[in-house]
Amino acid sequence: MASLAPRIEQVISALQCLPGVGRKTATRMTLFLLQGHRTEAGEISQALDEALASITACRQCHNLSDAELCAICGDERRRNGQLCVVESAADLVAIEETASFGGLYFVLNGLLSPIDGIGPEELALEAFLPLVKTKGIAEVIVALNATAEGEATTHFIRELLQDSDVALTQIAHGIPVGGELGYVNSRTITQAFQRRVHLDT
Amino acid sequence: MASLAPRIEQVISALQCLPGVGRKTATRMTLFLLQGHRTEAGEISQALDEALASITACRQCHNLSDAELCAICGDERRRNGQLCVVESAADLVAIEETASFGGLYFVLNGLLSPIDGIGPEELALEAFLPLVKTKGIAEVIVALNATAEGEATTHFIRELLQDSDVALTQIAHGIPVGGELGYVNSRTITQAFQRRVHLDT
Repeated sequence: MASLAPRIEQVISALQCLPGVGRKTATRMTLFLLQGHRTEAGEISQALDEALASITACRQCHNLSDAELCAICGDERRRNGQLCVVESAADLVAIEETASFGGLYFVLNGLLSPIDGIGPEELALEAFLPLVKTKGIAEVIVALNATAEGEATTHFIRELLQDSDVALTQIAHGIPVGGELGYVNSRTITQAFQRRVHLDT
Repeated sequence: MASLAPRIEQVISALQCLPGVGRKTATRMTLFLLQGHRTEAGEISQALDEALASITACRQCHNLSDAELCAICGDERRRNGQLCVVESAADLVAIEETASFGGLYFVLNGLLSPIDGIGPEELALEAFLPLVKTKGIAEVIVALNATAEGEATTHFIRELLQDSDVALTQIAHGIPVGGELGYVNSRTITQAFQRRVHLDT
């Protein structure tokens, strides 16, 4: 049943690299673009080419940026003594959208995972301590996934900061707001009990 | 919180044209591509450009094709007297994957929808009758969505074939295989009862 031309198969195959996109979704997207949305297809292609040509990693925090220094690192108002460690630019964006953090970031582009051969060098962690020292950081906030890799990475950062007087904090683990207890796994419930907070009475 | 460069925003915005992709998914896809999957991003862009340059509508059935005549229309073995009318190339692909139909197709690229100003001209339906006559079609199988637009289009095709001796059939409506009665709407259950089939006893 070779009903699709090779050039169409090529688009389907390329789109399957996207997170959460399998063959079925990629096929739907491809036929959608080539059939009635050719202008939009051209826009995607052009936008990707332009971004690939102009977007690199920020020299200081490794966030995605169109300049040597990203908008956050270049903003003097963000130098409040806080540095937030995140796994990816996507997590950075998620935090920025909440407007709940006003300091600088350090983007790891991954988490420590000895099984996958990802050590401190792969995460460019050698740039971390110099950044903490030169930017007058008083508190490092670890905002990583609550997974084994996230915990291993947090442990490594703790060791890096052992001989400094920089405070190390971790974002809270617990029941998601709007979430229901019955749908949360038992380790989350255990953590939520251990880290319970006092309410004013 | 302008943490994203305009070139990144441009990719996010372009990807949002895709079916089922909102801002959140588009952002995740964009950062995924630009951060650790730049080769794949280049492949998507190149595949789209090449497909846009080489893929057009088949002259005969309007399926997507890299030649004037698509692989199905060009295959003599598919001239079995059956013509299947589908809404889109995506539906054609879905049917081809089941290998349950061995004839020719006619792709409407839409459904009749007077409210949206989509009439017979927009669907290029003037090419339908000549195709039925020149290809020796004995049965037209309507394989459209079971919606008001699908029914309106089916009705129009029925009128087109009124003065011919071509048989007109419609694919069965009923309970999806693997589906549960409790999750199916009442019109489907009504149709399933009306179109019940005898079982050998």
